Amino acid sequence: EEEEERAEERDAFWFKEGLTEDFRVELALQNISFDARSTFQRVQVIETTQFGRTLVMDGQTQSAEADEHIYHESLVHPAMLLHKSPKKVFIGGGGEFATAREVLRHSSVERCVMIDIDEVACDICRKQLPEWNGGAYEDPRFHVKYKDALRWLEDTEETFDVIIMDICDPIEAGPGYKLYTNEFYEYVQKHRLNEGGILVTQSGPGAVYNAQKECFTVIHSTLRSAFDVVVPYAVDVPSFGCNWGFNLAFKSSDPEADKRDVLNRDVEEFNNEIEKRIKGGMDGMRFLDGLAWRGISGLPKEIRQQCEEEDRVMTIDNPVFMFAS
Amino acid sequence: EEEEERAEERDAFWFKEGLTEDFRVELALQNISFDARSTFQRVQVIETTQFGRTLVMDGQTQSAEADEHIYHESLVHPAMLLHKSPKKVFIGGGGEFATAREVLRHSSVERCVMIDIDEVACDICRKQLPEWNGGAYEDPRFHVKYKDALRWLEDTEETFDVIIMDICDPIEAGPGYKLYTNEFYEYVQKHRLNEGGILVTQSGPGAVYNAQKECFTVIHSTLRSAFDVVVPYAVDVPSFGCNWGFNLAFKSSDPEADKRDVLNRDVEEFNNEIEKRIKGGMDGMRFLDGLAWRGISGLPKEIRQQCEEEDRVMTIDNPVFMFAS
Amino acid sequence: EEEEERAEERDAFWFKEGLTEDFRVELALQNISFDARSTFQRVQVIETTQFGRTLVMDGQTQSAEADEHIYHESLVHPAMLLHKSPKKVFIGGGGEFATAREVLRHSSVERCVMIDIDEVACDICRKQLPEWNGGAYEDPRFHVKYKDALRWLEDTEETFDVIIMDICDPIEAGPGYKLYTNEFYEYVQKHRLNEGGILVTQSGPGAVYNAQKECFTVIHSTLRSAFDVVVPYAVDVPSFGCNWGFNLAFKSSDPEADKRDVLNRDVEEFNNEIEKRIKGGMDGMRFLDGLAWRGISGLPKEIRQQCEEEDRVMTIDNPVFMFAS
Amino acid sequence: EEEEERAEERDAFWFKEGLTEDFRVELALQNISFDARSTFQRVQVIETTQFGRTLVMDGQTQSAEADEHIYHESLVHPAMLLHKSPKKVFIGGGGEFATAREVLRHSSVERCVMIDIDEVACDICRKQLPEWNGGAYEDPRFHVKYKDALRWLEDTEETFDVIIMDICDPIEAGPGYKLYTNEFYEYVQKHRLNEGGILVTQSGPGAVYNAQKECFTVIHSTLRSAFDVVVPYAVDVPSFGCNWGFNLAFKSSDPEADKRDVLNRDVEEFNNEIEKRIKGGMDGMRFLDGLAWRGISGLPKEIRQQCEEEDRVMTIDNPVFMFAS
Repeated sequence: EEEEERAEERDAFWFKEGLTEDFRVELALQNISFDARSTFQRVQVIETTQFGRTLVMDGQTQSAEADEHIYHESLVHPAMLLHKSPKKVFIGGGGEFATAREVLRHSSVERCVMIDIDEVACDICRKQLPEWNGGAYEDPRFHVKYKDALRWLEDTEETFDVIIMDICDPIEAGPGYKLYTNEFYEYVQKHRLNEGGILVTQSGPGAVYNAQKECFTVIHSTLRSAFDVVVPYAVDVPSFGCNWGFNLAFKSSDPEADKRDVLNRDVEEFNNEIEKRIKGGMDGMRFLDGLAWRGISGLPKEIRQQCEEEDRVMTIDNPVFMFAS
Repeated sequence: EEEEERAEERDAFWFKEGLTEDFRVELALQNISFDARSTFQRVQVIETTQFGRTLVMDGQTQSAEADEHIYHESLVHPAMLLHKSPKKVFIGGGGEFATAREVLRHSSVERCVMIDIDEVACDICRKQLPEWNGGAYEDPRFHVKYKDALRWLEDTEETFDVIIMDICDPIEAGPGYKLYTNEFYEYVQKHRLNEGGILVTQSGPGAVYNAQKECFTVIHSTLRSAFDVVVPYAVDVPSFGCNWGFNLAFKSSDPEADKRDVLNRDVEEFNNEIEKRIKGGMDGMRFLDGLAWRGISGLPKEIRQQCEEEDRVMTIDNPVFMFAS
Repeated sequence: EEEEERAEERDAFWFKEGLTEDFRVELALQNISFDARSTFQRVQVIETTQFGRTLVMDGQTQSAEADEHIYHESLVHPAMLLHKSPKKVFIGGGGEFATAREVLRHSSVERCVMIDIDEVACDICRKQLPEWNGGAYEDPRFHVKYKDALRWLEDTEETFDVIIMDICDPIEAGPGYKLYTNEFYEYVQKHRLNEGGILVTQSGPGAVYNAQKECFTVIHSTLRSAFDVVVPYAVDVPSFGCNWGFNLAFKSSDPEADKRDVLNRDVEEFNNEIEKRIKGGMDGMRFLDGLAWRGISGLPKEIRQQCEEEDRVMTIDNPVFMFAS
Repeated sequence: EEEEERAEERDAFWFKEGLTEDFRVELALQNISFDARSTFQRVQVIETTQFGRTLVMDGQTQSAEADEHIYHESLVHPAMLLHKSPKKVFIGGGGEFATAREVLRHSSVERCVMIDIDEVACDICRKQLPEWNGGAYEDPRFHVKYKDALRWLEDTEETFDVIIMDICDPIEAGPGYKLYTNEFYEYVQKHRLNEGGILVTQSGPGAVYNAQKECFTVIHSTLRSAFDVVVPYAVDVPSFGCNWGFNLAFKSSDPEADKRDVLNRDVEEFNNEIEKRIKGGMDGMRFLDGLAWRGISGLPKEIRQQCEEEDRVMTIDNPVFMFAS
């Protein structure tokens, strides 16, 4: 009988999200528990039967209870572990505070600055999705300001070991698209990253059919215009409906050595670093470890080719051509 | 105006496929160009805007124009390349003939036997999806028989270097579930595989949320009950709606060495083998190469754990417990 | 831009309701503002863009802001106006209190008793949908009890001029199916209706394709087994997704005259009665008047034929055969 | 088991049609058996489980096996029966030939001219939906020409007793919107209709929530600008997803008498006329008879009010304002 009741609910409410105009996913919806509009976007907290509580902004899944750990472990730890000993970390965006949560698990970190433009959205996440931040908020090493990340970075004198860009895709970021341009990457590479520093950015959908149509390959190519070593990777985050792309960029004195190292990092060694440097060690990692890093950095030949052949570079004056493909 | 016409079509027809009761994908449907029923199943050839011509059996996507190469390269080449020099290859199922197409690209192959129970479905594929077989049908090394694969294997004296199981998931295979049991794997391991031989089987959905709920971890665990070395891997085949699972099983005289080798195969060496042994070489590979092999074999920590912890074993008398989870 | 925001919301959330297994409606969903379970059913208050706030029970639309007046005017006023001067009125079910609201607009009414089994659901309606009851709750002529309607009617000595059955369809009513049987109708006709009394019952979907497949024609036929004059009618309530059926049954001393009168009621005369007897008069009626009564009682020939030819009669011992069609 | 197979098919393919941006119907799709593009539109023949074979033009249902008789009986017979003895009949559009089929059942008809602009679409209907035309094509009284209906009417000297406009809604008709303007109606009223003649036109969606938002009330109001007596009516055609609107316009010497007569036509008398004048008589009518005519002409008070209060009139120079509401 309970079974039957479930069936009724299943038929009743659905959350639909378009991956393209011709391809959508549908998730059985349990409730819309929060719904508000900040200055910048619509913010909703919903619950789906499949993926649990989910943050939705402007109709798009941002992170879901069942697999936000996949997204956040994959965004944060490769950059942090490939750096020798990150002390100072910058997060651009990161409203759910889950990126900060993962950064702060690294014992080397002395200071983590997060700049997000949308205070209202951040407050909603803290109150509605308290498990997402894992107490980051109380960590004395953590500093959050609600400002324009670009302006803050231009105004500061501070430099960082790791910079993590966790903001909307360029087309949805509005004026935030500037955080995906050659100009921004050049500036960061020269002025805000310490020697040996690493920048990582979420880079939109990263599957065979949409890596090039969306922004993954263009972000890759734009990073290459400012950094010597750029490594793309992609992760299956089921609630996003498709593989999700990321790019790592290295401020390196020995690019060749670095690139080799990144893709050939020994599995055991990677696991040892986790054990040593991250609070909770291997037991605390659910998705990512040495072998999983090989998994997410071992992109299909055709996507790597699309990255290499991409010649569009995003600049402040030419931001839109990238969606003309 | 053409744009507008497209919009109308987009709204009109859809192909929906459930990944779970609570999670579905929807694809804009261009046409249903073929529709028939064999003794065993309903066979349809449709066209979706996103993935092109697609073979659908009993309402489930089997393979699509846009990404069948991902599925078939991933099913065939790891097993073939991890074997030293496969001369005799058995395919169970494989109705689209695309598995045979990939096998026959290997110059070492002297004989490839395919046993599929459904002649009608195979004929439909040949006529409706001619590019899928790539001429396999005319290759003198290729031999197809329309029979029950289990019975054929029990009746033959022949032994093989590589056995490729390309059949429906156990629950949908009807009596074919026997091809997923301990008894079958024991028999094959002892009597039909040559020393150093490898069996690979498609193993159903392989994403974090369904690897255990469906049959991936149980197939893995059942293979482990008969083989010393079993390696699971998973591949993003976009038209399937989720990552897809596979398992490799090795008849090995030195299991430890073999397992180490499989997961640490050097990228350059893997590429060299492709160049040497496969018709078309690296240029002929669209999805798979050395780095991509690392990608698909580098499973998330949590899925590997689910595989290791799985203790259900499928037997002829106990086939159904596996769906009780 | 606001346009665009609307578009995003439109794509995001949907309420789906199946009319049959093969025919569904989808409504853009604004929110699920209330969600609870009573002893008897799941009760939700949602808002759709198309029809506004909507009461949903066990996944089925009960009444919507935009057109509940159509349902309730059509359920109540024909029975009330076709009676000479209804003083005592019984409502079975009627949880939204909107049926009571319409009954109490009749100046002839001295006493209106409503018996609904689900106090929790009734309370939810009062609080969440206050406009639905229109103050019925405060009217001194109105008396509500939360009991089993069948038992209450069997235990009372009271008799009524009009009996209005506003409960779930038989299949969903659970034990409440008894309120749709020959035994119930016989009992009411003989013992609870005054001479000249009228019973009206909502009767499920009433379109050409589902009047017979669902319960409309069977309810009609069962009423005919207990009453001499039974008049079916059907109304387009858009939020229900299809025409909705009702049946009027007359305890008549001159059946022929009555039947003729019902279907030939002069339009002007009907309007005059509205003006005279209903609070607010013609101005207070949004959907129903003399011409609209002709509209809803002028059923298609094929539905009238289905009603006449229906020979299944629902009894306490044989309630289920009706869904075998 | 067959049951199960049905379930699979049900989940697989769907035909979706939007009634508004926020309200859609979904129909389980069996096949798309024909698909072509004429100069004017896309023409598809599909089969849905619910309504059988269905003609779809530019993504919109035109008529379905299960209920085309409802649409065509309702379009043709009221106009024909309310005329004393229609001898010459003009059909504008009417591509399925089912409008002609119903016209030719009237024994009074001596000549029926049909002018449809799209010969390709008409041919498709004849071949793919042969039952739709019921042999109209072979009737010597029937004459079809593939031309622009407006130009043909302007060029001819012929006059008609009944003119039936069976074309797309104004917004979709492209240049055909001219057939919905005051200018066209004035011309027809003065020059192409005989004394006592009647024009009827399909008029788009006619439910409470869309009669005014779409074109029903505007067509009504535009007809009133050229005719003294205009009678709106609406019919539940289930495969259209909502009630469908029509308008009758009378070239009358005694408007008051005519209007009264139309809405008060005695049921028996109406049935007698059917018996006398239509081939097959009452037995040949599935949907429409005297009582059903009362049903479809007895519009809800609120829709009649919307019609009366509508003051937008469509003219050749001002065709679009009507969708601005």
